[in-house]
Amino acid sequence: MGDTTGADHAHMATRHRASRASALAIAVVAAFATTGACSLERPARGPTAGTTDVLPSWADTPTRQAIVDFVARVTTEGSPDFVPPGERLATFDNDGTLWVEHPVYTEVVFAIDRVAQLAAAHPAWRTTPPFADILAGHPERALAGGKQGILEIIMATHAGMTPDQFERDVDRWLATARHPRWDRPYTDLVYQPMLELLTYLRRHGFDVYIVSGGETDFMRAWTRRAYDVAPAHVIGTTAVLRFELQGGVPVLIREPKLLHVDDGPGKPEAIERIIGARPILAFGNSDGDLEMLQWTAGGRGARFMGLVHHTDAAREYAYDRDTEVGRLDQALDAAAAADWTVVDMKRDWATIFAFERPRER
Amino acid sequence: MGDTTGADHAHMATRHRASRASALAIAVVAAFATTGACSLERPARGPTAGTTDVLPSWADTPTRQAIVDFVARVTTEGSPDFVPPGERLATFDNDGTLWVEHPVYTEVVFAIDRVAQLAAAHPAWRTTPPFADILAGHPERALAGGKQGILEIIMATHAGMTPDQFERDVDRWLATARHPRWDRPYTDLVYQPMLELLTYLRRHGFDVYIVSGGETDFMRAWTRRAYDVAPAHVIGTTAVLRFELQGGVPVLIREPKLLHVDDGPGKPEAIERIIGARPILAFGNSDGDLEMLQWTAGGRGARFMGLVHHTDAAREYAYDRDTEVGRLDQALDAAAAADWTVVDMKRDWATIFAFERPRER
Repeated sequence: MGDTTGADHAHMATRHRASRASALAIAVVAAFATTGACSLERPARGPTAGTTDVLPSWADTPTRQAIVDFVARVTTEGSPDFVPPGERLATFDNDGTLWVEHPVYTEVVFAIDRVAQLAAAHPAWRTTPPFADILAGHPERALAGGKQGILEIIMATHAGMTPDQFERDVDRWLATARHPRWDRPYTDLVYQPMLELLTYLRRHGFDVYIVSGGETDFMRAWTRRAYDVAPAHVIGTTAVLRFELQGGVPVLIREPKLLHVDDGPGKPEAIERIIGARPILAFGNSDGDLEMLQWTAGGRGARFMGLVHHTDAAREYAYDRDTEVGRLDQALDAAAAADWTVVDMKRDWATIFAFERPRER
Repeated sequence: MGDTTGADHAHMATRHRASRASALAIAVVAAFATTGACSLERPARGPTAGTTDVLPSWADTPTRQAIVDFVARVTTEGSPDFVPPGERLATFDNDGTLWVEHPVYTEVVFAIDRVAQLAAAHPAWRTTPPFADILAGHPERALAGGKQGILEIIMATHAGMTPDQFERDVDRWLATARHPRWDRPYTDLVYQPMLELLTYLRRHGFDVYIVSGGETDFMRAWTRRAYDVAPAHVIGTTAVLRFELQGGVPVLIREPKLLHVDDGPGKPEAIERIIGARPILAFGNSDGDLEMLQWTAGGRGARFMGLVHHTDAAREYAYDRDTEVGRLDQALDAAAAADWTVVDMKRDWATIFAFERPRER
């Protein structure tokens, strides 16, 4: 029983650290928060449009029609644009495309929480930026350096364990962490219209991959549950793994070193390296997706390039060219020039989150 | 028509270079050739055993029984060893496990042919080892340095083009190249018993991947045709890819730089990184497969670890501890210690190649 008491004590200490960490996370979120109304009122024409069988959370606009038309063209035998099932590859960005990324990427909130949790084992962090800033209660300073500092925090806090152990840590965190705006688990903040699109594509013989700047194992912890996407269909930023025998038992250890940054040109590179085929449909929401969309557009035959444009400050967020998180600038220009499909969230999505709707079953 | 003549001339020049290159390849093969009889006589008990419906090219020995028993255990609902279909992952090495690797890896023969083909565009090669040795007609010297020199040749001759262009080059080479012992295309030299095993596993709900030290794009050029394995199921040594826009057209260029060496510990590392699940069955034939087999063995539940032991100098080759190509030494000891399944090619395979058998249909 002494062990149990010890465990309880350790558990309480962890809880204490965790609650401190959550406060820090909220501080980050506050620091990054966009201004604007946060009421959950719906746009005027959503509800009437979201009632058909196909893609019911999409409003009845040209955007939904463009998706349905494309799928019909590539799946109808005899159509000049017909694509055999084995070649119907679709790739989706994750943050900001399939789930909420504002005011700060979910994985960054997780990493900041972990800095506080792991600080006792890393005394040097107290005096080393960017960790010192987080531990001093100023995570916004740690993140001000942009992607490099964020990657440093992620690598340091996501290393030294097996992928399995790491995924369990992510699971545990997701079970208690809440997005401050909605006070809901982050996995509630997946976009219902995009879930329907993933299902719709799979039903039409598409092979659906996630291709995201997020870390592969961070996503694998929950993408099967949230999106019905298996681990082998998750391509992300990856850490180096190191194989070793620990007392005769083979283990793989996550090293604090990046093997691949799955952002910008890294996306088509990883798609080719891992899948070995070119998507016929791709969806993103930021400049980090531009090269994936260009690569998709560059193939022969019918193609669909989509961008989620965050235009709805009332129900979600409104941002594009002027944000550090999910900036959509060059890709928005490219979409206009090449006539790619831009989803206007406010106009095209009748429902954004499943929890908005009355339960139907 | 002037163009056509120019093209013909270029074509003849290519043919000339190609025939010179083939002579070089044969020299390598000769240099590496193992001694021993080359007659194609069959072992005594093969033919009578290879007549059942399940795995017909396998002799009726405990090895075939072990495979069939394992598959029955993991696929029978209610069995304590039952594994749901989505978790039936099988990984296979390629060289020496699925096709012939002696006297020299096929990809090395291809690379040596390419050194001669590409030499005009790389004048420095005439004086730079290991290329100079190949161009001077001594490929065996170029290969004497072991894996590092081989990788250098492969990287230099497999870079600067798109994966598609490279795969077309591989296709063209395979169409005319012949293994000197059998005077047949290399893709004829896949092992019939292993083809049957791949099919047998897929029919029982297994997801079959190739996990090989060979270069991913080299394999992807022909693995669908030869093994019915799609590009996304081929994991190999990979070159860095670089995305760029060429006159507005997005391309991916193979760089002369390795991203991942898929050998030894690199195999379980890539399996976890790309598939994100642990195999329940793995097959290899050399020490380069040891860590993949250990990783497979280290999982919970029923497991199958297999090694192809090349014991048949009459029908194929006989080698294990004393070869530079496909050395089987530590992995053979590990198999004995842990009771993994060792396929004795001479005893366990009634037929090795499809072309040995009279046509049945």
